[in-house]
Amino acid sequence: MTMSPTNLPRRRLLTGSAAALASIGLASWSQGAHAQTAAAKPLPAALGWKDPASLIVHSSSTIETKRSAFGTSVITPSEQLYLRNNLPMPDASIVADRDAWEINIGGVKNPRKLTVRELKSMGVESITMVLQCSGNGRGFFSSKPSGTPWTVGAAGCVVWSGVPVRTVANALGGVAEGMNYLTGTGGEKLPESIDPKSIMVERSVPASAMADALLAWEMNGAPIPLAHGGPLRLIVPGYTGVNNIKYIKQLAFTAQESDAKIMSHGYRITPPGTKSDPSQPSVQEMSVKSWINSPYPDSGTLGVGTVQIHGVAFGGLQGVKSVDVSTDGGKTWQAARFIGPDMGKYAWRQFVLQAKLAAGSHVLVSRATDTGGNVQPETRGENQSGYNNTSWADHAVKLTVA
Amino acid sequence: MTMSPTNLPRRRLLTGSAAALASIGLASWSQGAHAQTAAAKPLPAALGWKDPASLIVHSSSTIETKRSAFGTSVITPSEQLYLRNNLPMPDASIVADRDAWEINIGGVKNPRKLTVRELKSMGVESITMVLQCSGNGRGFFSSKPSGTPWTVGAAGCVVWSGVPVRTVANALGGVAEGMNYLTGTGGEKLPESIDPKSIMVERSVPASAMADALLAWEMNGAPIPLAHGGPLRLIVPGYTGVNNIKYIKQLAFTAQESDAKIMSHGYRITPPGTKSDPSQPSVQEMSVKSWINSPYPDSGTLGVGTVQIHGVAFGGLQGVKSVDVSTDGGKTWQAARFIGPDMGKYAWRQFVLQAKLAAGSHVLVSRATDTGGNVQPETRGENQSGYNNTSWADHAVKLTVA
Repeated sequence: MTMSPTNLPRRRLLTGSAAALASIGLASWSQGAHAQTAAAKPLPAALGWKDPASLIVHSSSTIETKRSAFGTSVITPSEQLYLRNNLPMPDASIVADRDAWEINIGGVKNPRKLTVRELKSMGVESITMVLQCSGNGRGFFSSKPSGTPWTVGAAGCVVWSGVPVRTVANALGGVAEGMNYLTGTGGEKLPESIDPKSIMVERSVPASAMADALLAWEMNGAPIPLAHGGPLRLIVPGYTGVNNIKYIKQLAFTAQESDAKIMSHGYRITPPGTKSDPSQPSVQEMSVKSWINSPYPDSGTLGVGTVQIHGVAFGGLQGVKSVDVSTDGGKTWQAARFIGPDMGKYAWRQFVLQAKLAAGSHVLVSRATDTGGNVQPETRGENQSGYNNTSWADHAVKLTVA
Repeated sequence: MTMSPTNLPRRRLLTGSAAALASIGLASWSQGAHAQTAAAKPLPAALGWKDPASLIVHSSSTIETKRSAFGTSVITPSEQLYLRNNLPMPDASIVADRDAWEINIGGVKNPRKLTVRELKSMGVESITMVLQCSGNGRGFFSSKPSGTPWTVGAAGCVVWSGVPVRTVANALGGVAEGMNYLTGTGGEKLPESIDPKSIMVERSVPASAMADALLAWEMNGAPIPLAHGGPLRLIVPGYTGVNNIKYIKQLAFTAQESDAKIMSHGYRITPPGTKSDPSQPSVQEMSVKSWINSPYPDSGTLGVGTVQIHGVAFGGLQGVKSVDVSTDGGKTWQAARFIGPDMGKYAWRQFVLQAKLAAGSHVLVSRATDTGGNVQPETRGENQSGYNNTSWADHAVKLTVA
């Protein structure tokens, strides 16, 4: 199991009051080792507003949340949210006057250009959803696919506000006939002398995804930060991150999928050892998944006693119905309970199981079931690029209780 | 109506595409004047992580959110959340090892000291609630009470995680007999040579408030910032801000209310022109309230057309059931709709009404009703210190449409 770098031996320091805890049966933590911070890369200057203590910086455009930093309050704060950009961020000048940003709406009866200012007058909705990179969990593939070795932290649960895509389409006369896809084009500046199709961020999702999609200007109650796609981002709830187009400059209902390389060859479920091609399934809808965030070795060495095992669970397009937790690597299971508010079927739920852990080694795993009855699988689906890892075994937390 | 300082004349700049908007009936905004930033006080150094653009700094310990900065995504981000501290913040050393913070639990069968580390092993829940200063809306009192002239921004909707107070009480043998109150004591450092009772932050709420109260270590998914009461804060959902004790060092079930001055004489509903005394009602539970955040003059001059009128509504202890909006100062009303997730009865809801505003002056007001049938009143209850202003008339937004 690949983890954030915690290779130095952890100190085992009994807390002063550890002995007193026996009276009420509580476990005690020794101090966590902070060795991992020594090896950490710094945040890029443009992301100085992010919280370095909760993040693992893989590169200036690939940053994940530490597993031990996920809290129990449903929402992932923007300062802790992962980042993965396919192209360099546009210049910050595009958020100097956010309301002036323009988007072309195509594939409707009356195609036209609209500013964010105009979109804001047309309607407003708010939706909470799991934003997850297609490659989250890639770090657990034993085949070591190329790409960022994300473990669990290329995901977060985020609130978006914007105008529903269906409202915009209706205002412009409705979707034109024969349009099967909703295709979004990012506004990143492309290098000249390269075929734009080979590098541009343009993705298509089924037109039916319009039902809950937003053109969003707000994330977690504030204007969307540039790094996360502000001033305007296409939000397609239940679909992996790449389908949520940043700096969106064109949204079109189209007859065919985009022929940009990121769509035709990128993000495909490619058999191991082969090359990607457009006939392979595209990485789009997410599937039921969960993982445990605490206890986790980052927090120190655990003493014997009662612990609150907590984590997150979500169901892709269907919402999560239940979560089972095992402390013996999946031999036996107990039903966890959900805590906190239900923010809708696209949000994750926080689950908790109270358990007593005896001295020795433990393998903690969680297994979620969605409202359609789909159960999170034990093993991952092998694929060349390490996408869509929902294996509960891969997401195990291995602990030693002293 | 007192507003954030926008006394300079606003520029009226038609946007380039304003004319084109007629085709789909949308209103257009001209550029908002940013004159208010010229007069703004800077954030204190310890609050450098807050977002200055969304805040009005009254003093280093009294900071409110700008009305135009409230978004439509339910949660108020921590960087935008108001601040009101009765005493100087403790030294930042208390959050260096958050889990080591100790609290005395009293008025139970087996009183004892517990660390945050121990509390985290005992249980975890998450709750979303409106945190609102008792004096929010004071700025609308024509009597100009002493104290910060908050308008709407001394409030936010925040997610907290921690252990339920009832879980802690049960683990310690249950509440002792005859205890009617839950009394929390803040851990601020008190100046010597002053009677501690005259200055300490110690408040009592009815013991029944234990049902949903938390000892919280997390706010909006991250460890509670020092300024907001970390490492440990008492959260009493539905009660005004002062009852949610920061840096809590003692939580006791008590037979009587605290005799600290902040309880006996502070935060009382005192008749105008008289002195406070303990016989007057204490400022505790919040009442049903709403206000409109957009359109708001900060955002510029509005052109004729369709707008999305949005704001927030909450019901104190009971949750909000419905909101009516008027564009003529309360002569006629229309039902608004709620958007976004329902995060429970203590959270606020975002409401929206789509309206067409003709040229001329408009007075926009909102009026909420809670699930108990209580209706937000037209006028405020006059009192000496300017507490509990829920008047819908006071919270009107006055607009000119060009």
